[in-house]
Amino acid sequence: MRNREELFKSIQLKSSFLCVGLDPDAERIPASCGTGVQGMEQFCKSIVDATHDLAVAFKPNLAFFEQYGSEGWAALERIIDHIPKDCMVIADAKRGDIGNTAARYAQAMFEGLGAHAITVAPYMGEDSVRPFVDFRDGCWTILLAMTSNPGAQDFEFHGNPPLYERVMERAQTWGSPDELMFVVGATRPEAIARARTVAPDSFFLVPGVGAQGGALRDVVDAGWNAQCGLLVNSSRGILYASSGSDFAAKARESAWSLRNEMKAILQEKTNG
Amino acid sequence: MRNREELFKSIQLKSSFLCVGLDPDAERIPASCGTGVQGMEQFCKSIVDATHDLAVAFKPNLAFFEQYGSEGWAALERIIDHIPKDCMVIADAKRGDIGNTAARYAQAMFEGLGAHAITVAPYMGEDSVRPFVDFRDGCWTILLAMTSNPGAQDFEFHGNPPLYERVMERAQTWGSPDELMFVVGATRPEAIARARTVAPDSFFLVPGVGAQGGALRDVVDAGWNAQCGLLVNSSRGILYASSGSDFAAKARESAWSLRNEMKAILQEKTNG
Repeated sequence: MRNREELFKSIQLKSSFLCVGLDPDAERIPASCGTGVQGMEQFCKSIVDATHDLAVAFKPNLAFFEQYGSEGWAALERIIDHIPKDCMVIADAKRGDIGNTAARYAQAMFEGLGAHAITVAPYMGEDSVRPFVDFRDGCWTILLAMTSNPGAQDFEFHGNPPLYERVMERAQTWGSPDELMFVVGATRPEAIARARTVAPDSFFLVPGVGAQGGALRDVVDAGWNAQCGLLVNSSRGILYASSGSDFAAKARESAWSLRNEMKAILQEKTNG
Repeated sequence: MRNREELFKSIQLKSSFLCVGLDPDAERIPASCGTGVQGMEQFCKSIVDATHDLAVAFKPNLAFFEQYGSEGWAALERIIDHIPKDCMVIADAKRGDIGNTAARYAQAMFEGLGAHAITVAPYMGEDSVRPFVDFRDGCWTILLAMTSNPGAQDFEFHGNPPLYERVMERAQTWGSPDELMFVVGATRPEAIARARTVAPDSFFLVPGVGAQGGALRDVVDAGWNAQCGLLVNSSRGILYASSGSDFAAKARESAWSLRNEMKAILQEKTNG
């Protein structure tokens, strides 16, 4: 999945544009997995085993591993090793720093962790983003544009054009749609449509479906393009579908249900 | 240094408002330290030993540790343990994510690493910042406002008022100057003066003096307040003052020289 074409092929092959977010919350990990770092690792690997054929990507959220320090980081390395090769690994790190530092983060994620993509924050501008885009062919940079959280209103809509549009316009001069995606949240469909106008060819990573209140159909209506153009993330709705020892089976059911919706949409959009 | 008063006392006691940035670049670490993670750890500890009485803070840049994966993270834990208790530890992490994730990052930095402060990116707004501010009394959140790099022009000056001013205005409603500082780069003195008008009582963490071209005197003229209000960071100018086995002595000389400038300024400002 080194470019849009390969990503779209994977989406067609799996009839899915689902990304499973790995946000292992210690307070919600079923007791049957054990406790501490080991329990967290067992939980994540079980989720991967239960859902990998239904997902095109997994998105580990680095905060949930860093909270365990070096042990958590080592567990994350093993979990990523455990993810099958036909799934994209997105390091949800939201890093952003000046050039020489950004290059280290790129190395940490793409080489160290073996991620295929990393989420990056745009605040500091071009020299904080380019080291990711330029790191190596086939590595994806996923830039925050319009996020799904309430705080998105504070700054992302500031100015005219709103900041998120300015980010998308500028960033497209730094990297092609084969190396750069944008985070576009599910909770504001009208802004997804606007984002699609600004970046017609780019893939969007879309958080906020499910727990945060966004509806899949609204996202598709606003953001679809000729190559699907969407990776829709679900974290909590899958991870915590059950708090019992049947958590993996229930996670699969939840992912299956979302994938089936996606399958129907893909059939409608590509044959219609 | 749990609030401005304690921080200002420490500044007066040490006659210094110097922050030493720990950005251990593998290609520039003197051969006498050894190689790999061990060399990096030895290098950082030697810099701390050579400069801790001249600095009020150390600022490890997490990218340079994460590039070594879990081993690098473990080395960072040991380096932070090695920093004397009379110095503030600023985790230069520039994290920023939605509420439940931000809370994990706060835990990772304040509890896991034992940092007293963390740099945070404001892009995603209030719910991405508050978990740091609210984590615990005595922990500092240092929010990116106007950075020292060329890319700062891309988005930080977008809109009217410019984004960095909007960030500073909004953020002051989320935390007091005893828990919230701002990153204000040294390379644009006129914008430092503007930032001081927007946030008269806040401490600014100021990168960009030295290697990036900012002058200490210009920073002081633009940003000084009644409690100093400035932590001026130097990284490369101190760390790489010599590439030989005398690197620690030369680092001390470089820090000494900067501290002496600061001492003179403090005498002038507080007795004048």
